[in-house]
Amino acid sequence: MVIIIGISMMVPAAVDLYYGNPDWKIFAQASITTIGLGGMACLACRSDIGPRVTARQGYVLTVVSWIAVSVTGALPLWYSSLDISFCDAVFETVSGLTTTGSTILSGLDQLPPGLLLWRSIMQWLGGIGIIVTALALLPMMRVGGMQLFQMESSDRSEKLSPRMRDMCLQIVLIYSSLTFVCLVLYRVFGMNWFDAINYAMTTLSTGGYATSDLSFAKFDSSLSLHWIAILFMFAGGLPFTAYAVVLRKRNIQAVIGNQQIKLFCLIIAGFTVLLTIRLTQISDDSLFRSLTMAAFNLVSVITTTGFASGDYLLWGPAAVMLFFFATFIGGCSGSTSGGFKMFRLYVVFTGLRAHFMRLRSPSAVVVSRIDRHEITSDIYNAVTVYVFLLTVSYIAVTIALGMTGLDLITSMSAAATSLANVGPGLGNIIGPAGNFQSLPDSAKWILDIAMVLGRLEFETLLVLLMPSFWRD
Amino acid sequence: MVIIIGISMMVPAAVDLYYGNPDWKIFAQASITTIGLGGMACLACRSDIGPRVTARQGYVLTVVSWIAVSVTGALPLWYSSLDISFCDAVFETVSGLTTTGSTILSGLDQLPPGLLLWRSIMQWLGGIGIIVTALALLPMMRVGGMQLFQMESSDRSEKLSPRMRDMCLQIVLIYSSLTFVCLVLYRVFGMNWFDAINYAMTTLSTGGYATSDLSFAKFDSSLSLHWIAILFMFAGGLPFTAYAVVLRKRNIQAVIGNQQIKLFCLIIAGFTVLLTIRLTQISDDSLFRSLTMAAFNLVSVITTTGFASGDYLLWGPAAVMLFFFATFIGGCSGSTSGGFKMFRLYVVFTGLRAHFMRLRSPSAVVVSRIDRHEITSDIYNAVTVYVFLLTVSYIAVTIALGMTGLDLITSMSAAATSLANVGPGLGNIIGPAGNFQSLPDSAKWILDIAMVLGRLEFETLLVLLMPSFWRD
Ligand SMILES: [K+]
Ligand SMILES: [K+]
Repeated sequence: MVIIIGISMMVPAAVDLYYGNPDWKIFAQASITTIGLGGMACLACRSDIGPRVTARQGYVLTVVSWIAVSVTGALPLWYSSLDISFCDAVFETVSGLTTTGSTILSGLDQLPPGLLLWRSIMQWLGGIGIIVTALALLPMMRVGGMQLFQMESSDRSEKLSPRMRDMCLQIVLIYSSLTFVCLVLYRVFGMNWFDAINYAMTTLSTGGYATSDLSFAKFDSSLSLHWIAILFMFAGGLPFTAYAVVLRKRNIQAVIGNQQIKLFCLIIAGFTVLLTIRLTQISDDSLFRSLTMAAFNLVSVITTTGFASGDYLLWGPAAVMLFFFATFIGGCSGSTSGGFKMFRLYVVFTGLRAHFMRLRSPSAVVVSRIDRHEITSDIYNAVTVYVFLLTVSYIAVTIALGMTGLDLITSMSAAATSLANVGPGLGNIIGPAGNFQSLPDSAKWILDIAMVLGRLEFETLLVLLMPSFWRD
Repeated sequence: MVIIIGISMMVPAAVDLYYGNPDWKIFAQASITTIGLGGMACLACRSDIGPRVTARQGYVLTVVSWIAVSVTGALPLWYSSLDISFCDAVFETVSGLTTTGSTILSGLDQLPPGLLLWRSIMQWLGGIGIIVTALALLPMMRVGGMQLFQMESSDRSEKLSPRMRDMCLQIVLIYSSLTFVCLVLYRVFGMNWFDAINYAMTTLSTGGYATSDLSFAKFDSSLSLHWIAILFMFAGGLPFTAYAVVLRKRNIQAVIGNQQIKLFCLIIAGFTVLLTIRLTQISDDSLFRSLTMAAFNLVSVITTTGFASGDYLLWGPAAVMLFFFATFIGGCSGSTSGGFKMFRLYVVFTGLRAHFMRLRSPSAVVVSRIDRHEITSDIYNAVTVYVFLLTVSYIAVTIALGMTGLDLITSMSAAATSLANVGPGLGNIIGPAGNFQSLPDSAKWILDIAMVLGRLEFETLLVLLMPSFWRD
């Protein structure tokens, strides 16, 4: 049954993507509708099979569908008028679907509009796919402490399907509405329609593909556009389940009381202040412009969007390091952003507090909670495993990139930016002003794997490498 | 009572160090005897007060004595004929006592021998001090999962003192004997007496101070000297309690069966093979010479010794990254080495295994053990806290160094090398062929704190910053 669903997911996507290739207009229209339908079908199927699929089938299905979608998604790019290699086409597609947003294309301003739209659509679909995966699949597989959210979405009832399907539909609606609002605001404040549509899709999905080599610096003169982007990147980094709860209960409490969101705001505010101080030291810009630039670039990195506006590599070594470490942080779980995520950070904080409390009175029993859910030792364990897998993956990817001949900073930041699905790295080659085109093909394949690895929270993919997983 | 001990520890050290300063010969002799006596007194006192001291007193005492010893140890350097600043003198002393081995001195070959000897002695004493701290103090304070070793040394009996004092004396004897054997071997295979004495002390303590700007490359032609160094650096990275058990039971089983040691050998062997392959690719040297260089530099970094022989920055980006990450690993607990340490790595591995076993059968109860001691959730928690504090400290130190104006690679590797007490960093400034002299004073003070932080396994120092620690 699982295989049937897998095939039914891939066939329309493959066929229709292939279908549209000779003519750009047709290609773009066909893609929108078919991938849209495929995505919907996939959502519906996933929530249907949710309770019946075994853990092993779930892992295999997830990984196989990632590979299938990536390859089929790459076909139009490969056959296009662009004359790029298959490796580059796959890289661009994986980067799009994982909402990483690293690009190998340059001269974006001169590309056919259909192609640019296709890139944005991939990110937009990738974004919604990720939210649904985080909602339906990962908690069931108990990946990286995500079982915390299993209770939340199922409300302790056994019948998962109908509630889950409702929730998914709600979230698709919310995601679409937010994109539409963002689009309208972008248009009103000065973008043309084409840019507004593209940027709205890549903002909400925290993807970060742009329609210009300048990325967001194209709108350098309009600070209001920057603030719209900040707002909607931030919105893309929040848990979409919280929006759904707000809508259902008609009560803003679910957002204000959410501990992930609180922590997220706190971190963004703190870092923005630091960066603003730094910017006012080194430039003659007004305070408001400095604040805008600091907030924009920080929110862009921390929500793993990866829009660039102004080359933050010129802000001095301390700022560069702050951006490097911020790359790993990520937004809230259940959002479109990648990275370590707020709830894990919160779990670690509570663990730390519990530890220090036990240091003072060793017999004390400390129960930590996040949004009323008790954090059990199971969850601590899972978060520790996540940290370990992240560390090992990071080291392995960095060294592998080094073996392809890249320098230290490029390797280290490329590994970070791909595993956390941010997009731009550091250094001259892949920095916010650079491009992944010049990397060797082997490095691009490594980064493909890294991007998917980060998206699937490591465990889902790495568990397939364990011999014991295949034993009965 | 604690205060009295603290003062009695500091007074002889301070007085006698000051006493010897005008005359180098006298200074050197006085230092050896008084610091030797002070060290012994300190050992005896520590094991005496062990059971009676409260956790809070323990923390404060540890940190205060570190500050006191660092400042008094710096006096002879400051007043010496070298004309170095107080900041530099303190840096050199802290680097010595923590067995980090980063130096601000250049032209080592021309320095007065008394001074070189004093640097080596500081490292040697630092080394034994660290073993004793790890044996007596840290397990009691439950720092970073070290409570694992509390059971081992106390054998579940309440009366800690006599056994502990015996153990400490045994370990001092073992440490001295190994140093002596190392000294004799160095002399036999071609070093002069002075070099042999100095290098023996800085090898066993995994300190890494040299008597020449070339570090170990001075003996480039003698591969046998390299292998002696490899052997004794490795010996310094093993748990000294295991030696004591071997001696007591006259049975090598304690070393062969020890899971920390197994893992340590495995990691060293694996990485050495990789590096040897790499070296044979890039150079025309014989296989044996490549193997020697690979093993020497790897063991030097992984045991946190930091001797340099051949500039491994020239071995290509992948090798450089391997060295960067190896910086953090460290040796076994209860050794003179710094870093993350084998037992924590082992604890994380068992956690990973348990996690994946629960993924397949969620109801399974998995009990993990290390050397027959059960790894409780307390210990997992403590190791997680250690990882978190290490990460936060690393990020904070890196960004702080960046704010002093250092470049990215220097900041990142200086933070790593100081927190793990390795010694040399990466890049042109502080690489194996470089020197810490040119760093700004503010960076040196930051590194002082980082070195002590790493030595005290973070928690001991950071707990003093928590307001709740000072409340009743
Ligand atoms: K992105
Ligand atoms: K060292």
